[in-house]
Amino acid sequence: MNPHPRLSINQATIKHASLREAIDATVRQGVQSIGLWREPVAKAGLAESARMLADSGLRFSSHCRGGFATMPEGPERRAALDDNRRAIDETATLAAAGADGSSASLIIVAGGIPEGSRDLVGARGRLEEAIAELAPEAHAAGVTLVLEPLHPMYASDRAVLSTLKQALDLADRVGSPAVGVVVDSFHVWWDPDAEEQIARAGRDRRIASYQVCDWATPLPADVLLSRHLPGAGVIDFARLTTWVNDAGYTGDVEVEVFNAELWAKGFDEAVADTVTAFGEHVSTHLAVPVHG
Amino acid sequence: MNPHPRLSINQATIKHASLREAIDATVRQGVQSIGLWREPVAKAGLAESARMLADSGLRFSSHCRGGFATMPEGPERRAALDDNRRAIDETATLAAAGADGSSASLIIVAGGIPEGSRDLVGARGRLEEAIAELAPEAHAAGVTLVLEPLHPMYASDRAVLSTLKQALDLADRVGSPAVGVVVDSFHVWWDPDAEEQIARAGRDRRIASYQVCDWATPLPADVLLSRHLPGAGVIDFARLTTWVNDAGYTGDVEVEVFNAELWAKGFDEAVADTVTAFGEHVSTHLAVPVHG
Repeated sequence: MNPHPRLSINQATIKHASLREAIDATVRQGVQSIGLWREPVAKAGLAESARMLADSGLRFSSHCRGGFATMPEGPERRAALDDNRRAIDETATLAAAGADGSSASLIIVAGGIPEGSRDLVGARGRLEEAIAELAPEAHAAGVTLVLEPLHPMYASDRAVLSTLKQALDLADRVGSPAVGVVVDSFHVWWDPDAEEQIARAGRDRRIASYQVCDWATPLPADVLLSRHLPGAGVIDFARLTTWVNDAGYTGDVEVEVFNAELWAKGFDEAVADTVTAFGEHVSTHLAVPVHG
Repeated sequence: MNPHPRLSINQATIKHASLREAIDATVRQGVQSIGLWREPVAKAGLAESARMLADSGLRFSSHCRGGFATMPEGPERRAALDDNRRAIDETATLAAAGADGSSASLIIVAGGIPEGSRDLVGARGRLEEAIAELAPEAHAAGVTLVLEPLHPMYASDRAVLSTLKQALDLADRVGSPAVGVVVDSFHVWWDPDAEEQIARAGRDRRIASYQVCDWATPLPADVLLSRHLPGAGVIDFARLTTWVNDAGYTGDVEVEVFNAELWAKGFDEAVADTVTAFGEHVSTHLAVPVHG
C-alpha cells in the first residue's frame, strides 16, 4: 500500500527507535512526515537532529512535548517554564530543518494535579497562566503551542486539560494566535461536543494537528498503553475525520500509538503496519492532500 | 461518629451482603437511608424486600439499575425495554415501602456501543429513543428515570452517556418531568463544565441523586473497581458538594464505592468506614439536612 501523502509517523509509535532509526524506517516505508519527541532528539543532539531531518527530506509535523506546568509558583515552576522555552527553540529549529509543509507545533500536555493537592480548578488556572506567559515567546519564535486535551481518565495525574472546549476557551482567554489545539482521536472520540468544538477550532484557526489512534476495551493494566492502530478499536474514524476535514484542516495526520505489541516489532514492520491501518481506516476519509 | 442524616449507603458499597444483611448493617450503624440494586432484591423477592425495607424504617434513595438500551430495534431491544419496565415497577414498590423522604429514583446506565459497531452517535440516539419510550410509563408510576453519565473511560463498553450536559440535553429533548440526572462525583469530577451543568440541572429540577466516591490513580487493572471512599483520592468534595448544594439539592447523598478492599471487610465495618469518610470529607460541606 502506498502511504498516504498526509500520513506522519509519530516517533512514539516506534518508541524504542533512535532518531536515526526512526527517520530511516519512515523514509524507507515511503512516509513523508515525522513527529518527534524531545528525548531522542536530545540524545542525538539538536543540531545533529536537524541535520538528519533536513537530509531525510521528511516534513516535521510536531514536537512532543512541553507543558507539565500546573505547579504553584516557585523554583520547580520556573524550571518547568524554562524547559518549555527550550522546547520552543527546539521546535523552531526542527521545523526549519524539515521539508516544505513542516509545522512548528509544540505539543503541550498540561500536567496533573500536584501531589497532595485536590485543587483541580487551581491547577487548571496555573496551566493557563503558564500558556499566557509562554505564548508571546512562542509567537516570536514562530512556534505554535498546541494544547492537547487528554482523555479525562488522565485528569488527575497527567493532564488537567480534558476537552477541546476547555482548550479552546483557554486559547480564547489567552488571546494569542500562537496557541492551537490538537484533535487526538483517542482523547476526544467519546466527547458529545466533539463535532461542535472541532468546527469551532476550525473557525478560530486553532487546529494545529490531527492525531489518530484507536480505543479498545478492556483497558490494559497500564492505561497509558491502551492505544491501538486505527481499525483495532471502536473509534468511528469516518465521522471524526470528516469533522476535521470540514473544519478546514489540511495538514499532516499523525499516527501516535503507545502499544506494547507494536513496540515489540521491528521498526520497519511497525511503520508498514501503521501505513496499512492508516490507509484502510483513515486516509479514505481525508480531503484531497495539499502537500505535493 | 454519628452518621449524617442525609447519608445513604448504596448497597454496592457492601456488595457481598444479602438485602437482609445490608439493611441490618445500615440500621445498626445508625444510617437512615439505603440505595438498592436489583439483583439482591430479586433474590429476596420484591414483596419480601419491600417488607424488610418498611420494617427497617430506612429511607429508600435509589434503585440500581435500568438502561442498557443502545442496541438496534429487535427482540433483544424489546427484552431490554421490558426489563426496564419491571425495574420501574420495582422502584415504585420500594419507594412506597421506604420511610418518608424516600425517592422513586431508577438509576439508568446507558449501555455501551453494541458489539462489532463503531456507531457511537447511533447508540446515543437509540438510548434517547428508549428514554422517550419509557418516560411516560415512569411518570405514570411516579418514578424518575435518573440518567447517570458515566466517566468517559466507560463510553465504549458501559455507557455512551458521558457528561451531565449530554444527559441534560437529552432530558430537554425528551421533555418529561420523569427524567432526572445523578451527579456522581467519580464520573463528573474532571468535567470543566461540571459547575455550570450542575447549576443548570438544579434550575431544571433534574437532580435526582448525588452519589459520592473518590478517584485515585493509578487505576487498578479492572477499572470498574477504581473507586474509593471519599478522602482517599483527589476529588475536591468541598467544591463539588457546594455546587450541588447551590443547585438546591437537599435529598440523600449515596456513597457508592466499588472497591475490592472494602468488599473484603465485614459489612458493619465497611458501613462504619463509610460513615467516617462521609463525615470527614463530604457532610461538612452539605447544607442543613431537610430529613428529620
